[in-house]
Amino acid sequence: MTEAFSSLRINPDRMLDSFTQLASIGATADGGVNRPTFSEAHLAARKWLKEEIERSGLEFRTDGAGNHSAFLACAEERAPSFLIGSHLDSVPNGGRFDGALGVIAALEVLKTVKENGIRLKVNVEAIDFTDEEGTLVGLLGSAALAGYLNQKDLSSPCGGRDNLLEGMARAGLSDAGMLSAARPKDSLAGYLELHIEQGKRLERAGTDIGIVTAIVGIWSYRLSFIGRADHAGSTTMGDRLDASLGASAFTLAAREMVMKDFPGCVVNVGKMDFAPGAFNIVPAKVELALEFRSPDEQEFDRLDAALLALAEKEAARFGLELKTEFLGKHSPSVMSENVRSAFASSCEVLGLSHVPLSSGAGHDGQSLSELCPVGMIFVPSVDGYSHSPREFTKWEDCVNGANVLLQTVLQLAAG
Amino acid sequence: MTEAFSSLRINPDRMLDSFTQLASIGATADGGVNRPTFSEAHLAARKWLKEEIERSGLEFRTDGAGNHSAFLACAEERAPSFLIGSHLDSVPNGGRFDGALGVIAALEVLKTVKENGIRLKVNVEAIDFTDEEGTLVGLLGSAALAGYLNQKDLSSPCGGRDNLLEGMARAGLSDAGMLSAARPKDSLAGYLELHIEQGKRLERAGTDIGIVTAIVGIWSYRLSFIGRADHAGSTTMGDRLDASLGASAFTLAAREMVMKDFPGCVVNVGKMDFAPGAFNIVPAKVELALEFRSPDEQEFDRLDAALLALAEKEAARFGLELKTEFLGKHSPSVMSENVRSAFASSCEVLGLSHVPLSSGAGHDGQSLSELCPVGMIFVPSVDGYSHSPREFTKWEDCVNGANVLLQTVLQLAAG
Repeated sequence: MTEAFSSLRINPDRMLDSFTQLASIGATADGGVNRPTFSEAHLAARKWLKEEIERSGLEFRTDGAGNHSAFLACAEERAPSFLIGSHLDSVPNGGRFDGALGVIAALEVLKTVKENGIRLKVNVEAIDFTDEEGTLVGLLGSAALAGYLNQKDLSSPCGGRDNLLEGMARAGLSDAGMLSAARPKDSLAGYLELHIEQGKRLERAGTDIGIVTAIVGIWSYRLSFIGRADHAGSTTMGDRLDASLGASAFTLAAREMVMKDFPGCVVNVGKMDFAPGAFNIVPAKVELALEFRSPDEQEFDRLDAALLALAEKEAARFGLELKTEFLGKHSPSVMSENVRSAFASSCEVLGLSHVPLSSGAGHDGQSLSELCPVGMIFVPSVDGYSHSPREFTKWEDCVNGANVLLQTVLQLAAG
Repeated sequence: MTEAFSSLRINPDRMLDSFTQLASIGATADGGVNRPTFSEAHLAARKWLKEEIERSGLEFRTDGAGNHSAFLACAEERAPSFLIGSHLDSVPNGGRFDGALGVIAALEVLKTVKENGIRLKVNVEAIDFTDEEGTLVGLLGSAALAGYLNQKDLSSPCGGRDNLLEGMARAGLSDAGMLSAARPKDSLAGYLELHIEQGKRLERAGTDIGIVTAIVGIWSYRLSFIGRADHAGSTTMGDRLDASLGASAFTLAAREMVMKDFPGCVVNVGKMDFAPGAFNIVPAKVELALEFRSPDEQEFDRLDAALLALAEKEAARFGLELKTEFLGKHSPSVMSENVRSAFASSCEVLGLSHVPLSSGAGHDGQSLSELCPVGMIFVPSVDGYSHSPREFTKWEDCVNGANVLLQTVLQLAAG
């Protein structure tokens, strides 16, 4: 990197203006945003991004997976692309920062590079990946771009096939388009992402920047506990095959087991669906949304076996049948050593404190980590709130993160 | 009763024909029916009943609560009415017999009385009560007819106000109409109902007819366990306020407590609704549909206090807030001694074995039991299935029940 670049900074007011505009799309009364993938609000946010890219004089690009990019070409026509980005979709009733900050910061980095006329040795691209959060599939756009997506992922997605089809139709996308979005490996020079921490470690330590060492993997299942529908008045308690009992017992026991035997892992039962679902009918079936995470591939196999055995045991205890549907997995991803060093140098240049940490949340970078050098940085989350309207990061920290991105891109991509 | 009447029987083939026609409306592939109150199928069943009444040459009547009747007037203009009936609505994916048998048998009794030109000392009315099962309110039509319904029941119904409003709109009904359906107490001469047992007692004992002694009461609540939405990967297990834990622990503990300390009672958690309800978000709120039943009013007070204390305890154990919404109650109802004797005499005349038993299920008779003499009989349920497509009663037993109804009406209502 030319020494001259080390004094370059992003424009914090311009970035705040963009951030604020975006946060108003799908805004909820409690200060969050509600932009599940391909909802009306999410489509409006995508439209805003396209127009903002065009207003900035950057080239707008999209692909069959609906990923949206601002593209800044280098002089050499066939150079690979260095990606920077995140995602505009949110969980239902989520926060303003998750994903959005990373896209806005990436775009601000491109605006800064462009207005300073800096010559790059690779193309640089600020990207909004489709459906990171998993309303439909999860890490959908990045998996498609990386070439990992297959028809099975689309046929049996965690959000249900009907939701995926309806969503793709609203966005003008298709299975075939999704499967055609893979980029050649040699076209990817790297991927950087700025994200909020979604935990309390940086805040507790009073550290500016977290440099991610690895992203945990995620496995998900739909478990169905199946009993028998009976009249809830005339059937004695002892005669019932009540699906709620297996589902409840599993939920409690899974938590205890993970806390005791798998302290580096987490487990979540995010939803139960009761059928038939009436006050006066013994539940015949409870479908349970199960997800668990680990930073270690081998630990995953042990955790998986232990959770399924526990579900079988709790189903059997109440005379229930268990059906398990494996919905998909993302393996743990190790971040590039080279990128981590570059992030650390940038922090030093900027006078920011930094610490290595793992990411308990999944991110698009894991789709790309075996194809090109990938790195992530975190900025502090106030009180650790995440996937909640109360999610908040101080603007100063957001600006710090964007400047680390800028300096790191200049180190890794400048000519 | 004139001795001559004791040889009178309903027409089993005609009754079977009507029963089969009705069972085809809202029929499901697995042999049940799906006719929740004011669903398309339920409205079609009501239309069929109206036309069947008119085809039979009986007078069709309806009221502001949407109760439908076949009316057979006696000679005296101002005589009270003797009601016989049940309901056409079903639970979601219920069986063909629950409610429908009682309406079809009541109509067949009127047809038989009419075609035999029997003079009655009171009017006799075969009635289909609106929303017995509680898709919207529960025992709605009978409570309205009895004058027990009030605006609060309609403003905060167990199925939600929006569903009630939509349903009433589809049926052309209104709050005001519902509240105007009360009949004067002196206009009611009695109420008889034939129903399937919904349990295994008659089948196990090999008995033809159950003569109901009392109907259990039902209390219902919506309990909300409230925690905090957090990222299900980046929030440590120990830092979570997971609403699913309180709801699950309560569900298991309530069952254990009722089995141990309240052996004459039952409890059901028929549904849980998770919010926000995503794989990767710690559940912030679980709403739980709670219902419990007892044959004894004083035991209800103890059971109610014990269940609410248990919910508080389980919520507190996981750092959750508890909100309780009382949705309504029906007190236990004692059946008329006089009607029970008349049922027993009818069984003797017909050569049918009979046994006294309580009803674990709620029925419309409980709305009327303090206004006029009320009685119910049960016929055996094969394997005890209820609120299920597998619900079944042998046709011979259905015919026996209808003949007991006919003989008892003749005893109590004939001139």
